[in-house]
Amino acid sequence: MVDAENAGDAEVADGSGTGPAGSLGIATDDPLEAEIMRATYRALVERGYNDLTVQAIADEFPKSKSLLYYHYDGKDDLLASFLGFATDRFRREIEVEIDDPEAQLRALVDRLVPESLDDDEYRVQVALLELRSETPHNDRFREQYAVVDDTLKSVIADVLRRGVESGAFAADADPDTEAEVLVSLLTGVRTRRLSTREGFPIGGVRTALDAHLDRLLADPAAGR
Amino acid sequence: MVDAENAGDAEVADGSGTGPAGSLGIATDDPLEAEIMRATYRALVERGYNDLTVQAIADEFPKSKSLLYYHYDGKDDLLASFLGFATDRFRREIEVEIDDPEAQLRALVDRLVPESLDDDEYRVQVALLELRSETPHNDRFREQYAVVDDTLKSVIADVLRRGVESGAFAADADPDTEAEVLVSLLTGVRTRRLSTREGFPIGGVRTALDAHLDRLLADPAAGR
Repeated sequence: MVDAENAGDAEVADGSGTGPAGSLGIATDDPLEAEIMRATYRALVERGYNDLTVQAIADEFPKSKSLLYYHYDGKDDLLASFLGFATDRFRREIEVEIDDPEAQLRALVDRLVPESLDDDEYRVQVALLELRSETPHNDRFREQYAVVDDTLKSVIADVLRRGVESGAFAADADPDTEAEVLVSLLTGVRTRRLSTREGFPIGGVRTALDAHLDRLLADPAAGR
Repeated sequence: MVDAENAGDAEVADGSGTGPAGSLGIATDDPLEAEIMRATYRALVERGYNDLTVQAIADEFPKSKSLLYYHYDGKDDLLASFLGFATDRFRREIEVEIDDPEAQLRALVDRLVPESLDDDEYRVQVALLELRSETPHNDRFREQYAVVDDTLKSVIADVLRRGVESGAFAADADPDTEAEVLVSLLTGVRTRRLSTREGFPIGGVRTALDAHLDRLLADPAAGR
């Protein structure tokens, strides 16, 4: 689920310190890990999942290749670690980014379903969908995707819970159930978007997502 | 989107005439096409997407292999045709199956997100997710998946429109917007389910889907 946006952020944040995570003062990750993850991101953009090799990642890595081989056990390990890295980064950014639950929820949706996808983001999302389609055959990816989905669900449920407490969301919204719906909804939008790309009705889908979020809000006129 | 359930139905319906489509008196498809599609389904169950070959489909086809080679231009053509066949079958079944919009919508959700997935259904869904992840690189699959998503969306929007007219659904539900949400939601649930399988919280997800459908209903207590 978590991917290009986050991967892109990871790249910026750890590379230059000027990205959203850096500017928000999030504790930086291990710089070596971040550099390897950035190389993995670049290699995914360039090669996609099927043509990815450890060598392609090493080619994007400016330091000694032996560091990369020493820390990771092959392509699958690098990819699973990349997913975990991006997921963790995404979680921390969403958690600290904004304090208002409604704004936080809308920011999360914006991040996962942006109005436009640039080429790099598109390519990495495609690679990660390929990786997801490997989960039935690959234990490591399956475990990692379970973490991705659980993390996203728990982030959303926490935001909803705080929103219900603060009165921003409808009091009868069950945070866990609504989070389950929203994770699937966002996963589905992202999956469908990749299948059609230019043909994808992003405007209509964003409207639909907004309508769905509006329903979660406690506006008495909208009710529930 | 449309897949194992439908493919399974296609298999039963056209093979024995005792499946849901047959028993509901839907006009049968070209029997030769149906037999080739059944062979494609069986081969997908046995081999998955990556190991699928035209020969594997031919091995499941009881008639002259030359018929198969004559009618289809390779593996991708067979797979795209299979998707189209299953989508069309699904559409026709949902349309005629039940007349009550609420029951129709719940049946559609049941069909796409059944309580349990048997091994064959699981395998074909996995193969079709792999096929979806090929859409960015494969024009034929991309076009076919656009048809799948559009078909599902238009079936759902039609059901919702009839439900709003009959008073079964909330009058302020916009059928096109709600259909967009529901197609993405169902796609996301199916995608996530394949990634974790045994670990997937199908009970909680079904509860969430039911809650989402309940919201679309015109129950004044639930409001909107």
